[in-house]
Amino acid sequence: MILRPGLVWLALAAATPAQATDAVAGRQKALACAVCHGPTGVAVAMDTPHLAGQPARYLATQLRAYRSGARQHEVMSVVAKPLKDADIDDLAAWFSSLQISAQPPP
Amino acid sequence: MILRPGLVWLALAAATPAQATDAVAGRQKALACAVCHGPTGVAVAMDTPHLAGQPARYLATQLRAYRSGARQHEVMSVVAKPLKDADIDDLAAWFSSLQISAQPPP
Repeated sequence: MILRPGLVWLALAAATPAQATDAVAGRQKALACAVCHGPTGVAVAMDTPHLAGQPARYLATQLRAYRSGARQHEVMSVVAKPLKDADIDDLAAWFSSLQISAQPPP
Repeated sequence: MILRPGLVWLALAAATPAQATDAVAGRQKALACAVCHGPTGVAVAMDTPHLAGQPARYLATQLRAYRSGARQHEVMSVVAKPLKDADIDDLAAWFSSLQISAQPPP
């Protein structure tokens, strides 16, 4: 089996926590998120993504993109604007800590 | 209980398939997506979102945003470019058909 450097890096990254974050603090900060994304990160609206179990780095990247304007959404662009880096990392830690399982259709 | 018109619309929309889509066709079309997003829409890479169980309308909106350039990603912007509307709707139907459950931490 030949591993490309990019794949090795990905494997290492997956095994190592990216940064010191606080899922408990994130849970408190996520109370406002529950209005759209649900109390356990499972949204009920058809236009709203589930956040439960999403990789923390993906969530943090998206929140930073909303904050910077690189990604746009009428609600999220406003909500993300005042977030500090620690808020973003805590929120990402909280939602990624929610375990999900997927069941394919029969 | 007083329902605002917007809420009624949302409830109706949730109960009614938005359009004729084909999750079975989407499953076939999604084979390439599995490289990053996993065979059942649960990604393994830290930068890649899980797609399993996401609302079809959310997924279709994001794919159209990648196709138009409104949302940017080094892989998705390329992958989404040639997709037809039917491809997008089928892919969204497939990934949204995967049931997920979320388990909060103790």
